[in-house]
Amino acid sequence: MDSLLLKAIKTMAQLPGFGPRSAQRAMLFALKNEGFFLDQLISNLESVRKNIKKCQICGNFSCSDICSVCLDPKRTKHQLCIIESVSDLWTIERANFFNGKFHILGGILSAIDGISPNQLNTETLLNRIENEGITEVIIALSATIEGQTTMYYIAELLSGKDINVFSLAQGIPIGGELNYLDDGTLSAAFLDKREVILSKKIA
Amino acid sequence: MDSLLLKAIKTMAQLPGFGPRSAQRAMLFALKNEGFFLDQLISNLESVRKNIKKCQICGNFSCSDICSVCLDPKRTKHQLCIIESVSDLWTIERANFFNGKFHILGGILSAIDGISPNQLNTETLLNRIENEGITEVIIALSATIEGQTTMYYIAELLSGKDINVFSLAQGIPIGGELNYLDDGTLSAAFLDKREVILSKKIA
Repeated sequence: MDSLLLKAIKTMAQLPGFGPRSAQRAMLFALKNEGFFLDQLISNLESVRKNIKKCQICGNFSCSDICSVCLDPKRTKHQLCIIESVSDLWTIERANFFNGKFHILGGILSAIDGISPNQLNTETLLNRIENEGITEVIIALSATIEGQTTMYYIAELLSGKDINVFSLAQGIPIGGELNYLDDGTLSAAFLDKREVILSKKIA
Repeated sequence: MDSLLLKAIKTMAQLPGFGPRSAQRAMLFALKNEGFFLDQLISNLESVRKNIKKCQICGNFSCSDICSVCLDPKRTKHQLCIIESVSDLWTIERANFFNGKFHILGGILSAIDGISPNQLNTETLLNRIENEGITEVIIALSATIEGQTTMYYIAELLSGKDINVFSLAQGIPIGGELNYLDDGTLSAAFLDKREVILSKKIA
């Protein structure tokens, strides 16, 4: 195979979801029809490269200094959701139930990956808490050891401020079958058990 | 999500092996570390776009007019393997057992996809047969209806020339278990059964 082609395929193979063979297949697809698709792909990637930057407030990707979520006047100002990465923002936005604003940490504390507290985007977080009239913070991090460590770290950081700090509920996922649940989830679901309230019938 | 970003992700999602979510994940990966990987990806794709063209002899992708396979003096000149696409060339080259040259048809006859004989790269094929001293042609096409139709079409085209024309053997794949084989393969394997020849022991 030509060395230029090989180099490009090797680069593509580094993308998550791709391996050496699927990157080959993708490259052949892109080169079809006189490279029509390749042109399109390059120009789209370039416009992302040139225009996309981080939102100065929340850390989201945006082509302006402040992203559309932060600028949206319809969103509740007093509710702030703290997340690890932009992909979490996309996930929550896709589900379309949260109407507050976001703050992206840019990582979670991890001894293995060598991520320490000063690498998290907490400085702007504290500024926002001071200045934006936030009364409720939801720390929406993964239910892993690193995620929960980070959650406690952030909660500690925010203690003493006049805000309510929440973490996500833990329990059975919707549609989850009891006999496929792991022990941790099962015991968490028992610990946080909820009373079933029936509305009284009018006799 | 930003519209530029969305457009680029939609383009990436068209690549085989990618869907909307994996394209999102790949884009986030590319944007990490101030877009370091994205730079690399764009420059590699651009150098492919600018430099890769079709080999004028066989149809392989190459950055020169004639590809390295056609130029290789160590390859047997008289053996020609006819294949559908560049990806087949890569597959055969990876297996590293064939030492002849290739000819890429650029498609196979297909009523559904509307590919007719004049869309196949057969003109240069006939020229090569005349001028390159080829004595053996191996038509290595898929064992599908379209592949086999094309195989007979090419064989017909080459009949009357002073060359031997072969198709690939059909039978049990290496490592294949008998009770998982489909009926067609099984009957093909019976039809082309081979005599087991034992070397005689010296008494």
